[in-house]
Amino acid sequence: MQNFPSRLLEDAVNEMASLPGIGKKTALRLVLNLLRRDVHEVEQFARAFTRLRTDVKFCESCHNVSDTELCGICSDGRRDRETICVVEDIRDVMALENTQQYRGLYHVLGGIISPMDGIGPSDLEIDSLVQRVAEGEVKEIIMALSATMEGDTTNFYLYRKLKEYPVKLSTLARGVAVGDELEYADEVTLGRSILHRTPFEQTLQR
Amino acid sequence: MQNFPSRLLEDAVNEMASLPGIGKKTALRLVLNLLRRDVHEVEQFARAFTRLRTDVKFCESCHNVSDTELCGICSDGRRDRETICVVEDIRDVMALENTQQYRGLYHVLGGIISPMDGIGPSDLEIDSLVQRVAEGEVKEIIMALSATMEGDTTNFYLYRKLKEYPVKLSTLARGVAVGDELEYADEVTLGRSILHRTPFEQTLQR
Repeated sequence: MQNFPSRLLEDAVNEMASLPGIGKKTALRLVLNLLRRDVHEVEQFARAFTRLRTDVKFCESCHNVSDTELCGICSDGRRDRETICVVEDIRDVMALENTQQYRGLYHVLGGIISPMDGIGPSDLEIDSLVQRVAEGEVKEIIMALSATMEGDTTNFYLYRKLKEYPVKLSTLARGVAVGDELEYADEVTLGRSILHRTPFEQTLQR
Repeated sequence: MQNFPSRLLEDAVNEMASLPGIGKKTALRLVLNLLRRDVHEVEQFARAFTRLRTDVKFCESCHNVSDTELCGICSDGRRDRETICVVEDIRDVMALENTQQYRGLYHVLGGIISPMDGIGPSDLEIDSLVQRVAEGEVKEIIMALSATMEGDTTNFYLYRKLKEYPVKLSTLARGVAVGDELEYADEVTLGRSILHRTPFEQTLQR
């Protein structure tokens, strides 16, 4: 990718290609699409990102993205304030909300402990989680992190930080995904799912 | 994709997802990446697109994207002014320039005749091409359009518009792609490539 006929085009392509997973060829295709739009449409496109960055707030309690100081979930009186679900980022909150199975609060860590990427506990919203637990209202912490080594590391770190408080710690159930065929499930998942088998009556309630 | 925790986030995701081939999930991933950047980086990102749209010029001769009234290729005295290569869009100019095999000028149609998409001859830079030919300096027009039905239609339309002028019309060679194995070439391509076989001495010059 070279021989750009215009410096402005090259700049726009480079900015677009700075997004993760967008290569130079895709970036050029996207930028040429923008170039065919009306000026005010492109201005609206660009303004959406600067406005988001400058005006968006992070909830002072759970650190989720929000338009207000306290997010819609934390300020909702009908939610169960005794349960906090700890997640890695905003997308996890949205995914869990879409299940409509959870009525508690959240705590967005803003990442996961990953020494390989230089992310340690101090880069995450862990102290503020301990603070929320220390206030005493919380009865259960659900650690809903990725089922990876980084997720397990973070779970263990949280366990050590929180074990002195009278709070129940749980993690998401591991097992065969709904819709999966058994022969394609990996051994570790299958092994755990038989160890932690569920009473059949429980499955009838869903 | 629903339950956005913030209206600003939703707006940004919708704008990102307005780009072709970017779904809502990918858009959210890209927008969250922007959200993690410094304010001035996001401003630079956004400005690149508005500046491109408002400040970029289209060459008044070949209609390629340009920072000046006449693009770098059209204003380059060393290029062969008797040959014009007709292409669909800017990316084709860049692809052909990268081959370093062509020293003539270009003409960017800005699309291809496609009745299904509502694109007719009047939507393309065809009159200005005929005008350039009518001026008399041009000896050959190379039609470098896609090898599709739309490309063939456009080729035929150009042929009818230009046949009254003393100008040679040619198209790109069709044949087996360099590096392709014969058994995987489609029948039409293979058939054409044996009909229009090339003297072996010609291949030695490359």
